[in-house]
Amino acid sequence: MNYPTRQQTFTWQDPLVTAEIGGSLGGLEHLKRIRDGELPAAPILSLMNGRLVEVSEGRVVFEAEPAEYHYNPVGNVHGGFAATLLDSAMASAVYSRLPVGVGSTTLEIKINYVRPLTATTGLIRCEGTVIHLGTTTATAEGRLTDSSGKLYAHGTTTCLLLRR
Amino acid sequence: MNYPTRQQTFTWQDPLVTAEIGGSLGGLEHLKRIRDGELPAAPILSLMNGRLVEVSEGRVVFEAEPAEYHYNPVGNVHGGFAATLLDSAMASAVYSRLPVGVGSTTLEIKINYVRPLTATTGLIRCEGTVIHLGTTTATAEGRLTDSSGKLYAHGTTTCLLLRR
Amino acid sequence: MNYPTRQQTFTWQDPLVTAEIGGSLGGLEHLKRIRDGELPAAPILSLMNGRLVEVSEGRVVFEAEPAEYHYNPVGNVHGGFAATLLDSAMASAVYSRLPVGVGSTTLEIKINYVRPLTATTGLIRCEGTVIHLGTTTATAEGRLTDSSGKLYAHGTTTCLLLRR
Amino acid sequence: MNYPTRQQTFTWQDPLVTAEIGGSLGGLEHLKRIRDGELPAAPILSLMNGRLVEVSEGRVVFEAEPAEYHYNPVGNVHGGFAATLLDSAMASAVYSRLPVGVGSTTLEIKINYVRPLTATTGLIRCEGTVIHLGTTTATAEGRLTDSSGKLYAHGTTTCLLLRR
Repeated sequence: MNYPTRQQTFTWQDPLVTAEIGGSLGGLEHLKRIRDGELPAAPILSLMNGRLVEVSEGRVVFEAEPAEYHYNPVGNVHGGFAATLLDSAMASAVYSRLPVGVGSTTLEIKINYVRPLTATTGLIRCEGTVIHLGTTTATAEGRLTDSSGKLYAHGTTTCLLLRR
Repeated sequence: MNYPTRQQTFTWQDPLVTAEIGGSLGGLEHLKRIRDGELPAAPILSLMNGRLVEVSEGRVVFEAEPAEYHYNPVGNVHGGFAATLLDSAMASAVYSRLPVGVGSTTLEIKINYVRPLTATTGLIRCEGTVIHLGTTTATAEGRLTDSSGKLYAHGTTTCLLLRR
Repeated sequence: MNYPTRQQTFTWQDPLVTAEIGGSLGGLEHLKRIRDGELPAAPILSLMNGRLVEVSEGRVVFEAEPAEYHYNPVGNVHGGFAATLLDSAMASAVYSRLPVGVGSTTLEIKINYVRPLTATTGLIRCEGTVIHLGTTTATAEGRLTDSSGKLYAHGTTTCLLLRR
Repeated sequence: MNYPTRQQTFTWQDPLVTAEIGGSLGGLEHLKRIRDGELPAAPILSLMNGRLVEVSEGRVVFEAEPAEYHYNPVGNVHGGFAATLLDSAMASAVYSRLPVGVGSTTLEIKINYVRPLTATTGLIRCEGTVIHLGTTTATAEGRLTDSSGKLYAHGTTTCLLLRR
């Protein structure tokens, strides 16, 4: 195969360190420290060229910029890029409302793709918002938009809450 | 922040080249050439540490090995990893049944997570199978299992068929 | 089996008549006539003890009252009740934005159940809203709430638009 | 409105009686008694013109016949009909594997519609099968087919297991 080859180097930090420290913080505080660069972000977020930029109770926003290394073999950004960001945003929105000692695990995500993303789409925002927070489960929704507010993908999630 | 930092370099090949050549092949032939290394795979697959290993009409299998750079901030592999592989497997299963001149775009995916993946799970298999192939839409399902056949995630997808 | 037996009689009107007339109206006008009792509603809506009460562009509201005949065998209202109402509301929201000559068919629905409904829940509202309206597909979301605004179920849908 | 009006009377039995008795049986035994007419079925099943016909560990089959009273206003069977049957079949498949003292509640369902049902489709079968049974959650899938095996709809569900 003689096709143009490209490469990219990604850096990340030990995710078990942040997981351990996070266990002693409530979700909101944990996420704020990640947003402020005081605790490591998810390594996969580095691969998605993204970062957590806004955190409040029940709502978070990630930013990311799609690149050629996110492509599928049919000429635009792979659905996994939006799925990864929406999963992050929706799970974090739920987590932002959990007190110390309560964790959350994602049972399922559902993602709708409404427009293709490309390497020229530019910076996108991915907002996650809690829909329902119960005692054993929670649901959230997410929207992925470009800088002009145009919608590219949206989703929902169901999370199981874990009381340690 | 003074946490252990790691890095990884990924390589990929121009995805527009394979998209262009793929347009003149049927889906099955296009996927076989990707499997055989004759055409570039999806760049994002390199980030997922995965590759296409089996292709037949209506069924494909990807293999991948989860690594620390796929982690979320709570100590295991991010849901985006399984979502990306399942999306690939399900969309490719549909594509494997499309003749020259017919493309497919993913309208939505739904992923269920049933066990956490970690960096010690080892090589996983992600199988996609067509459920329904109509004239304007198709559906498929996918399963992500480890080498012992244990299930980690499963999903379904709805695709829109595009006749050029 | 000697358990207390109940019965209920439902009435409805020929649904092919309304389908035929609807074909010559835009979606918004068709739905308004159903809301106003000028055209027959969906027969299944009678079984759900419900009716269309609000119609505007991109948003509709159904009302319904769950009854014992909607129960599952484990002591509360069957999930099919909320699914039927949410499907109606979401599909109608999409339909409300379609001009004469464009129809819509539901490709998939996804429903989350967050609280059980019972025969004492009283009148519930089911609101459907368009998220995305494209040229070939549309997506919408729905919420099912009681008279105090408490959420019982929510959902999303993907519709295929059909140009006749 | 002067359109042809039809009516149908449905009968059902007190669902709280069966719920109470079911609590002292395992899921499989409870379902077998419903199948054999020894315990009342879900009232909503009567409205769907259906009944439970096969029960084994991890797999159940319902039969039903779509009728005009299941129609939507656009000329075929409303999506709520298939959603109700698939929800029943998938939840019952999970329930069939639960011992005495363990219940299940449906967190979400996802239904794909691949062909329209009409009042002339005839008897349809709706099969539910467990995909994953864990300690706190379970997933299942369902298929709705006609007497020739043709697929009309399929789905998946996520259930939360409740240990009393």
